[in-house]
Amino acid sequence: MTTLDTHWFTEICEEGGSAFSLRIKRKLHEEQSPYQRIEIFETEKFGNLMVIDGFVMLTGRDNFLYHEMMSHPALFTHPDPKRVVIIGGGDCGTLREVLRHDGIEHALQVEIDERVTRISEKFFPELCESNNDPRAEFYFGDGIKWMAEAAPGSVDVVIVDSTDPIGPAKGLFTEAFYRDCFNAMGGHGVLVQQSESPLYHMRILKPMHAAMRAAGFDDTASLFYPQPVYPSGWWTATLAVKGGPAGEFREQAAADKSFETVYYNAGLHRGALAMPEFFRKALED
Amino acid sequence: MTTLDTHWFTEICEEGGSAFSLRIKRKLHEEQSPYQRIEIFETEKFGNLMVIDGFVMLTGRDNFLYHEMMSHPALFTHPDPKRVVIIGGGDCGTLREVLRHDGIEHALQVEIDERVTRISEKFFPELCESNNDPRAEFYFGDGIKWMAEAAPGSVDVVIVDSTDPIGPAKGLFTEAFYRDCFNAMGGHGVLVQQSESPLYHMRILKPMHAAMRAAGFDDTASLFYPQPVYPSGWWTATLAVKGGPAGEFREQAAADKSFETVYYNAGLHRGALAMPEFFRKALED
Repeated sequence: MTTLDTHWFTEICEEGGSAFSLRIKRKLHEEQSPYQRIEIFETEKFGNLMVIDGFVMLTGRDNFLYHEMMSHPALFTHPDPKRVVIIGGGDCGTLREVLRHDGIEHALQVEIDERVTRISEKFFPELCESNNDPRAEFYFGDGIKWMAEAAPGSVDVVIVDSTDPIGPAKGLFTEAFYRDCFNAMGGHGVLVQQSESPLYHMRILKPMHAAMRAAGFDDTASLFYPQPVYPSGWWTATLAVKGGPAGEFREQAAADKSFETVYYNAGLHRGALAMPEFFRKALED
Repeated sequence: MTTLDTHWFTEICEEGGSAFSLRIKRKLHEEQSPYQRIEIFETEKFGNLMVIDGFVMLTGRDNFLYHEMMSHPALFTHPDPKRVVIIGGGDCGTLREVLRHDGIEHALQVEIDERVTRISEKFFPELCESNNDPRAEFYFGDGIKWMAEAAPGSVDVVIVDSTDPIGPAKGLFTEAFYRDCFNAMGGHGVLVQQSESPLYHMRILKPMHAAMRAAGFDDTASLFYPQPVYPSGWWTATLAVKGGPAGEFREQAAADKSFETVYYNAGLHRGALAMPEFFRKALED
């Protein structure tokens, strides 16, 4: 049997009975922040790798999939987004994508662990290249608390770019949190949240849709996309929309977008909304 | 660092610098056929696993993605498919999906290694449940040779369900083979071939499109879909169409299909045709 020597980083997904590994050249950094253990590796083929508490967060090679799908669909779903709040997102990759949209006036990143951002500035400088944009603001603190205290109508788009629903991120996957997001929005608002693997995590995805609707959102839709370094390699972001449908977006604006992407385009957005049969049936049940 | 003990099957993808592993309960079967080494494992969470020469072929849990995407898009792209040839496909999962279409009159599976089919009958009986369908025919022999000798106009749809382009399957990824497929078709024909990972294998995908067009096909299009057990977890099937566009299909017929699927539906088909930006640019270059 093939075995992996010590030149590999491996993440086991217990519930999937699977594991994903990247061959590494060396460990570049390791620290225990007040919140979590953060490690950075140089991989052989995936650029730099960030690991938090043993779980893969991102790599230089494939983070474009995640960051583009966590930002552009939500922003093109909102009719006129100006004020964006990112909950989590400490690596700043989502922030960079958000700021590609000319109409954005203010993008606030609410990350609980400042060390994630400082480490990203050093090891993922490309993701942090918009950190000095005058429209960007950083607040290092608790996203759940921030959202509970947000002024009504003060936010257009909320992006929940968090770790899995264990530990401190657990409260980000609740109806109470979604209601706070809903209340922070004006007449039209869009929430998007990373929502795990359709193959492994229907036990998270189905209640998430229900909780978002229970919190007041008019419509929800999951976007499906590949993410090689996450369990099963198949991932979702789930949209919840206040004041409109989740499956419609400014398609012409997306087709005419003024910035470059690696993955996202208008056709991809439309395609990512298509639900696999098993998923459609699970939501309808 | 996490290491995997002997209760895991691991496949390393050298060109990706990555590895995928499944936790196994036990090895159920192992043999050296005249062509290759075939192993069957019982996994903890992915059902049975077939491995050929060390490479994951399929699992009971996620083969629906591959088999549905290798069959239904091609069949709904052809205006009226009656005669299908599957090159490879020894596990019979593609054959089963093909025979779900009422209009199919004859489906011939041309697999070089009869042992793959016999082993599948034992360890993947669900994939072989249509093997006794009177429309099904089995020929165990060389698919390249078979196609070179096929009568002109005798085939509507060719499905190339092969291993990677190394070893005996290499000849299935050539313009000469595509030309033989083209010549075996009548005025309207559809070829579909598994075409590797968009993240890892653009060096295969791009020349494949070019070779299919050089062989005479009017249009080509890749379909993108998740495949957790293949390298990068993201896979493609590439369509080549004689006598029509590759991006259009009998959408209403797909929406009204008379059979159940786990993944495929009309919206998914449309969505799977959407090209990521990097892919579109690579093909246009």
